Amino acid sequence: MNIAEHGIKIFSGSASQELTEKICQKLDIPVAQAKTGRFPNGEAMVEILESVRGEDCFIVQSTCPPVDQNLMELMLMVDALKRANAHSIVAIIPYFGYSKQDKKKTGREPISAKVVANMLETVGVEHLITIDLHATQIEGFFSIPVDNLTSVQLFADYFLKENIGDVAVVAPDAGGTKRARNLANAMEARRLAIIDKHRKDYSKAQSMNVVGLVTDMHAVLIDDFIDTGGTMVEAVKALHGHEANSVRIAITHPLLTPPAPERLRNSQIEELVVTDTIPIPADRMFDRIKVLTVADMLADAIQRIVGKSSLEVYRTNR
Amino acid sequence: MNIAEHGIKIFSGSASQELTEKICQKLDIPVAQAKTGRFPNGEAMVEILESVRGEDCFIVQSTCPPVDQNLMELMLMVDALKRANAHSIVAIIPYFGYSKQDKKKTGREPISAKVVANMLETVGVEHLITIDLHATQIEGFFSIPVDNLTSVQLFADYFLKENIGDVAVVAPDAGGTKRARNLANAMEARRLAIIDKHRKDYSKAQSMNVVGLVTDMHAVLIDDFIDTGGTMVEAVKALHGHEANSVRIAITHPLLTPPAPERLRNSQIEELVVTDTIPIPADRMFDRIKVLTVADMLADAIQRIVGKSSLEVYRTNR
Amino acid sequence: MNIAEHGIKIFSGSASQELTEKICQKLDIPVAQAKTGRFPNGEAMVEILESVRGEDCFIVQSTCPPVDQNLMELMLMVDALKRANAHSIVAIIPYFGYSKQDKKKTGREPISAKVVANMLETVGVEHLITIDLHATQIEGFFSIPVDNLTSVQLFADYFLKENIGDVAVVAPDAGGTKRARNLANAMEARRLAIIDKHRKDYSKAQSMNVVGLVTDMHAVLIDDFIDTGGTMVEAVKALHGHEANSVRIAITHPLLTPPAPERLRNSQIEELVVTDTIPIPADRMFDRIKVLTVADMLADAIQRIVGKSSLEVYRTNR
Amino acid sequence: MNIAEHGIKIFSGSASQELTEKICQKLDIPVAQAKTGRFPNGEAMVEILESVRGEDCFIVQSTCPPVDQNLMELMLMVDALKRANAHSIVAIIPYFGYSKQDKKKTGREPISAKVVANMLETVGVEHLITIDLHATQIEGFFSIPVDNLTSVQLFADYFLKENIGDVAVVAPDAGGTKRARNLANAMEARRLAIIDKHRKDYSKAQSMNVVGLVTDMHAVLIDDFIDTGGTMVEAVKALHGHEANSVRIAITHPLLTPPAPERLRNSQIEELVVTDTIPIPADRMFDRIKVLTVADMLADAIQRIVGKSSLEVYRTNR
Amino acid sequence: MNIAEHGIKIFSGSASQELTEKICQKLDIPVAQAKTGRFPNGEAMVEILESVRGEDCFIVQSTCPPVDQNLMELMLMVDALKRANAHSIVAIIPYFGYSKQDKKKTGREPISAKVVANMLETVGVEHLITIDLHATQIEGFFSIPVDNLTSVQLFADYFLKENIGDVAVVAPDAGGTKRARNLANAMEARRLAIIDKHRKDYSKAQSMNVVGLVTDMHAVLIDDFIDTGGTMVEAVKALHGHEANSVRIAITHPLLTPPAPERLRNSQIEELVVTDTIPIPADRMFDRIKVLTVADMLADAIQRIVGKSSLEVYRTNR
Amino acid sequence: MNIAEHGIKIFSGSASQELTEKICQKLDIPVAQAKTGRFPNGEAMVEILESVRGEDCFIVQSTCPPVDQNLMELMLMVDALKRANAHSIVAIIPYFGYSKQDKKKTGREPISAKVVANMLETVGVEHLITIDLHATQIEGFFSIPVDNLTSVQLFADYFLKENIGDVAVVAPDAGGTKRARNLANAMEARRLAIIDKHRKDYSKAQSMNVVGLVTDMHAVLIDDFIDTGGTMVEAVKALHGHEANSVRIAITHPLLTPPAPERLRNSQIEELVVTDTIPIPADRMFDRIKVLTVADMLADAIQRIVGKSSLEVYRTNR
Repeated sequence: MNIAEHGIKIFSGSASQELTEKICQKLDIPVAQAKTGRFPNGEAMVEILESVRGEDCFIVQSTCPPVDQNLMELMLMVDALKRANAHSIVAIIPYFGYSKQDKKKTGREPISAKVVANMLETVGVEHLITIDLHATQIEGFFSIPVDNLTSVQLFADYFLKENIGDVAVVAPDAGGTKRARNLANAMEARRLAIIDKHRKDYSKAQSMNVVGLVTDMHAVLIDDFIDTGGTMVEAVKALHGHEANSVRIAITHPLLTPPAPERLRNSQIEELVVTDTIPIPADRMFDRIKVLTVADMLADAIQRIVGKSSLEVYRTNR
Repeated sequence: MNIAEHGIKIFSGSASQELTEKICQKLDIPVAQAKTGRFPNGEAMVEILESVRGEDCFIVQSTCPPVDQNLMELMLMVDALKRANAHSIVAIIPYFGYSKQDKKKTGREPISAKVVANMLETVGVEHLITIDLHATQIEGFFSIPVDNLTSVQLFADYFLKENIGDVAVVAPDAGGTKRARNLANAMEARRLAIIDKHRKDYSKAQSMNVVGLVTDMHAVLIDDFIDTGGTMVEAVKALHGHEANSVRIAITHPLLTPPAPERLRNSQIEELVVTDTIPIPADRMFDRIKVLTVADMLADAIQRIVGKSSLEVYRTNR
Repeated sequence: MNIAEHGIKIFSGSASQELTEKICQKLDIPVAQAKTGRFPNGEAMVEILESVRGEDCFIVQSTCPPVDQNLMELMLMVDALKRANAHSIVAIIPYFGYSKQDKKKTGREPISAKVVANMLETVGVEHLITIDLHATQIEGFFSIPVDNLTSVQLFADYFLKENIGDVAVVAPDAGGTKRARNLANAMEARRLAIIDKHRKDYSKAQSMNVVGLVTDMHAVLIDDFIDTGGTMVEAVKALHGHEANSVRIAITHPLLTPPAPERLRNSQIEELVVTDTIPIPADRMFDRIKVLTVADMLADAIQRIVGKSSLEVYRTNR
Repeated sequence: MNIAEHGIKIFSGSASQELTEKICQKLDIPVAQAKTGRFPNGEAMVEILESVRGEDCFIVQSTCPPVDQNLMELMLMVDALKRANAHSIVAIIPYFGYSKQDKKKTGREPISAKVVANMLETVGVEHLITIDLHATQIEGFFSIPVDNLTSVQLFADYFLKENIGDVAVVAPDAGGTKRARNLANAMEARRLAIIDKHRKDYSKAQSMNVVGLVTDMHAVLIDDFIDTGGTMVEAVKALHGHEANSVRIAITHPLLTPPAPERLRNSQIEELVVTDTIPIPADRMFDRIKVLTVADMLADAIQRIVGKSSLEVYRTNR
Repeated sequence: MNIAEHGIKIFSGSASQELTEKICQKLDIPVAQAKTGRFPNGEAMVEILESVRGEDCFIVQSTCPPVDQNLMELMLMVDALKRANAHSIVAIIPYFGYSKQDKKKTGREPISAKVVANMLETVGVEHLITIDLHATQIEGFFSIPVDNLTSVQLFADYFLKENIGDVAVVAPDAGGTKRARNLANAMEARRLAIIDKHRKDYSKAQSMNVVGLVTDMHAVLIDDFIDTGGTMVEAVKALHGHEANSVRIAITHPLLTPPAPERLRNSQIEELVVTDTIPIPADRMFDRIKVLTVADMLADAIQRIVGKSSLEVYRTNR
Repeated sequence: MNIAEHGIKIFSGSASQELTEKICQKLDIPVAQAKTGRFPNGEAMVEILESVRGEDCFIVQSTCPPVDQNLMELMLMVDALKRANAHSIVAIIPYFGYSKQDKKKTGREPISAKVVANMLETVGVEHLITIDLHATQIEGFFSIPVDNLTSVQLFADYFLKENIGDVAVVAPDAGGTKRARNLANAMEARRLAIIDKHRKDYSKAQSMNVVGLVTDMHAVLIDDFIDTGGTMVEAVKALHGHEANSVRIAITHPLLTPPAPERLRNSQIEELVVTDTIPIPADRMFDRIKVLTVADMLADAIQRIVGKSSLEVYRTNR
């Protein structure tokens, strides 16, 4: 199938320029022309520079920090496309910001991820493609179709190629068990472990408990995002404490909010493997970070959407 | 505050007759008059028998099995109240059916809990009160306010009064850790444990692992609902295998789908403590079931809503 | 036109399996694969088993008894298709349950048919095809297009082929006059009569009055559905009392709620002609029931929809 | 209850000035001040002349001819009140125009009454009060509460007071049977008859058949509205042909579209009794028209709404 | 591109029959068949006479006086098309009535243009094409795409062809500056002037001030519509007072509400150039009126929409 | 009226802390407690710290720069209040960001102010109070009531008290004429002038033309906001060029985007009078800036809303 003949247009928000270019290169079509920026007073400024009348449009924009600006820019791009008579508008949000705020912890908090979902639906997004949502329930915040792809296979392929020996896939908390199991399945890893922060006895201090054997194994910690990295480096220590041979971290969305880069650089990890759903600024990079690209997966997803075939291959049982 | 003076009306769907009567008794007002039933061909039949013009109305109806009939009856009651010019309509759904279907496991499943949420909002429910939702994210399926109360304190008070000795609160799976911790806090229990189904080594069979010490403790397993009870009786066995002194189960919503009653009767549990969010038919009852009532909590919640005071006391940090 | 090339998918709800198979046979395409059923606790369970991305999907599901289960299953199927990115979703509801509850008789009843209409629109049905709605005003409960087909021609063709002699088409009540007239026109029947329950004098008892001559004619009573059948057998008696030669009944939707089968079996009817919009369980069948299929009509309707041609031929002036 | 203390405001559209004044006189409050009119180019012009912030507002406006202008004026009044921060807006539409277009007769017609319903809901009407809707199903076109009052008791009281002797209430067609029965019940009339236009034999011409005895009775024909009056004068003739002693007509909504006034003046009717839901222009009046006012009923309805009591007394079983 | 092959259907409301015929002639397709009219009681009557199932439909209807009737007819046409399963519905409203009421002047007025916008969206219009909206902000009253074309080039071409000498384009008030500048640009006119009603000194009477030199120039006054024409003839006088050589008026929408025709006939204008967005009744025509047609522009716009190309050429920078 | 007894709650977003405190001081009630801030990764964090169940809540938050953060924080506050069961939510947005983007200049831009309007309505704002919107048409972007107050009287009072001599009020462009006229009326100023950027002859360069006499007058330039200040300082020069005695600037919303502060400090203005709808950071302040507070006006507006009286006094004819 030659996608160029279907006349789709792929736009890039300012947070995902590089990724969009990779996707378009893969699809062998140019990035559609749009002007995005800021007025001197800080308001987002958007102008679509080519006709989209009757066209199927995709916008690639991660809502990574600065999250509100990136989100608002995306909103305005959608509005501009809709008013310019685009036939359909698909938002590709590789990293979906505010997804951690998916529930009320007390009775008087917002459910911010739902607010964002409503914003996107109201402005006219008709289909959402995203990667490794913090909780799958977030799909239910939307009434439009959501394709929540997973990068698990990307990580599996990478580690298998690296041929790192006997692997124990480790979830950094109980909630991440499913994600870890998926990676373990994809890698045919021998072991699965869970880090569980709890107390042996309720009067004692909380400690990092490793459930499952990791002794002499090569541990791969997996999570959807890494923020300031505090818990993660504690988990690394605990794994070493349980005599893991080595520790690697696999993270889909590298927020790497300071002091995460410093903490990780100082930790005993072999490698931090991430994807390019969020671009990493130079000052947060360090040599043990390995960036895998989701561009091929997204390009293929676009091709399948245009060609009306299933995306099931990019979902894992959740 | 005398609630009768506020002229509120509390209606009962056919699934929650007894509970509604208890609530109204507590509030010292009569249950509002409505006729609910079925036409010979099985269609739900609803008629409100007293004027609700300008009144604040509450409908108590668990969407327990037969879930579709109970849900549809609730829908028709709301429609009837709305068309009869009720001032406001609050649905009290002690047990919220379909809440387990809160996410897609594959790419081509419904998110049934979201479908139900949309149905209730569309028909005119303006506020939902429920108890121990399966996942707190479900609050985000709604745009209306949801008061998701917890029965944790009910269980804590009961067990404390029973004075059962040193208690270890146990979550039957990793996802239930928070719920268990809340009960442990409320009881000032000494220990917390988690049952974790997993494999020591990935080539081995799956087994019930107990994370945390329960030896010589009185274990209290807690969960939101019990369905056919298979996992739960396995958990009971595992706890006994880890030399727990005794095992009790605390369950908010006693679905008790057969063969659950038989399985539990044959298991080594001291007690199955449940609430009356779902009425238990006689043929599913057995002597070790203890039913706590949520009527006082719901009556107080209604009083607080009418009196405009906080319900925070019935939420726990999630 | 070869419909297979348009890549449409026709799914069947569990209430209309046989009818869907007939439709698909007629169209020479397989029934699309889906799993529908119930969890042990009675909740509906739906899974679509083939990709529907970008496809035009039809779901055939009568909301006959058990009406709430069939309706809810349909709702979940629509949600699953929508979330799986179907291009369009057409609901084919041969028998539209709750359609008799299309108005409030007192001030405090639901308008249940409207509740159902809103449910279907909210979940994502974009087009409804149904047969012989109880009242045509129900089309106005929807904002989406409704194709309300009629089976009048089916009945006419059948009776004409049977060659039963001089026919008087009879409406069982004043409200059914239009339906009877349509059948009379289609059959070029000589006479039209109306059964009118009323009193000669207001102090007298109510009686079945036959307006129009049926003496020595072959009467054909026609109605949209038959429920418990009480009125209908009274009408049969009245026609015989007015010296009709024979009495037949033509009914689109054979609910046949007991004791209808017994009543009808014991009545002096030649034949009860119905369609397969509702499958008749074996224990309600008897030898004088003749079932006509609506499969050809629905198959042709689907073909016309795909081929963008008019369905006017299946409507009658109402 | 003193309604003035509740601070409600009753506005009048330009089609119902006189009726609104009567209602307000009855309630002992002034008509709220608003300017309605037309710009030279024919656009409706509306300005509310007193503060409505936080007030409960009623607008009385029949959508009688010129229907589109009256409807649009009502729309603009609602918008103006909503934007001026009224607390609630109740539309009192004594005669609901377009209500005859409540269904599609062919496949390509609008359902105009539904279009009007959607317009009113969209602009912000929260509650509708109307009188004798053409079909009760129209209540289901709305999601807001509809109080569909009936003037049957008004007519009954009038005729009983007139003491006209033995009465037969007559429905001018089969569809009006229920309305006629309601009047007969309210008057304790001895007889009920139905005019049925049909053919004895299908090859013969259509004729006016009178079902039920009217010989030597005083006939009262009842209907919801009278348009050009053609059918009605035929019905009058038929009743005289069946030796009715006298014929009266009771009509809620006197559209009296020419040539109705002439036709009726030339017919053998004793009296045409109507209500003031539609004002009758001088050139359509004649001496045998008797106008009953709905003002007392509407004033009482407003009082009951403000006082939160039931309107059931103004509904009849339908 | 042969538009006939795309199977679009262009319908005409009763206000734009002649214009629609011209458009269709240009596109070489017949006007689609529909019946529009009025019932004797004044209600709009609409019936679509050909199948539109799956078709892309355009309705051409100016909402010129009688504005409410034309608007309502358009609403019913849209509803009929939607219910008849049209694939898409584009409203072409060459003159958008109520557009002058685009803001509240006091706190208690409607925003009538917004009411109209909501009505059109609610009934199912998916795309609006209009010409020279009174204020561009009105596009923001809609959520659907609005193509607000301009007739500036039409006027420019006409005047350039007339070769009238040195032109000063004049805005009749400050708000019209942009429109005048656009015409001046299109004509490469040497001068731009603005008529400004104000007072030299606040205690003095208001007067018509001409900002910019028009001496010895041929003035072209431009505005979006002309209503009763009072201000315009004053502007004409002022321009002659400032020694303009001649004065022409260019108006997109010729409302020409009396006494406009008389006023203009009596004024010193060379020519009143208008378009056919509003048909001019014979009794308002006079010899110095020149009517340009927007049919070619609209036909081309339709062709571009069907052919998915840009309409930017018909917008001017605003 | 004692507002404390009405139990309203006034919350402050982080952009309007000082202003909210002033308002609450004026009303003699405490600012309601809420926690607003940012998570380390930049996501907004909101928690309401007191019960709002059944309460009428106001949130004061200007959407000044950083506009997207302030807007998003406001969105989350509204969501939190709604989910916590507030009775009503009024947004007070003294400066409404994105209001300049109220129309498309080309065919492929967003209408950003409309996007913001939809966001606020979707999340649950029921009433908007704002000050000096850039265009009054923006009220029509909303379906909820908008009270668009004006600060004109504030400026008039200030200048009258300053007693600055003969005043000419000057609009900096044609679009601002109405605003200038309103100030002139409020001050009973003798003169009104308009700055008009245009060319005498189209071949010449554009220049600042002053329409109306300002010689020997004290000029007061008025506008809704000042951004980078380029046009404004040119206008100041032009006024001095036309021999104004002095020049003052009155601006409601002091965006003062650099280099505005420097430009203005270097210009020949007597004074820059602004309001506190936007807080001015210290590094943008200079001695000739005079800040008037809108706190009294907003406090009074709140009191009128609670007391159900008119806000007409704070609107001016537009």
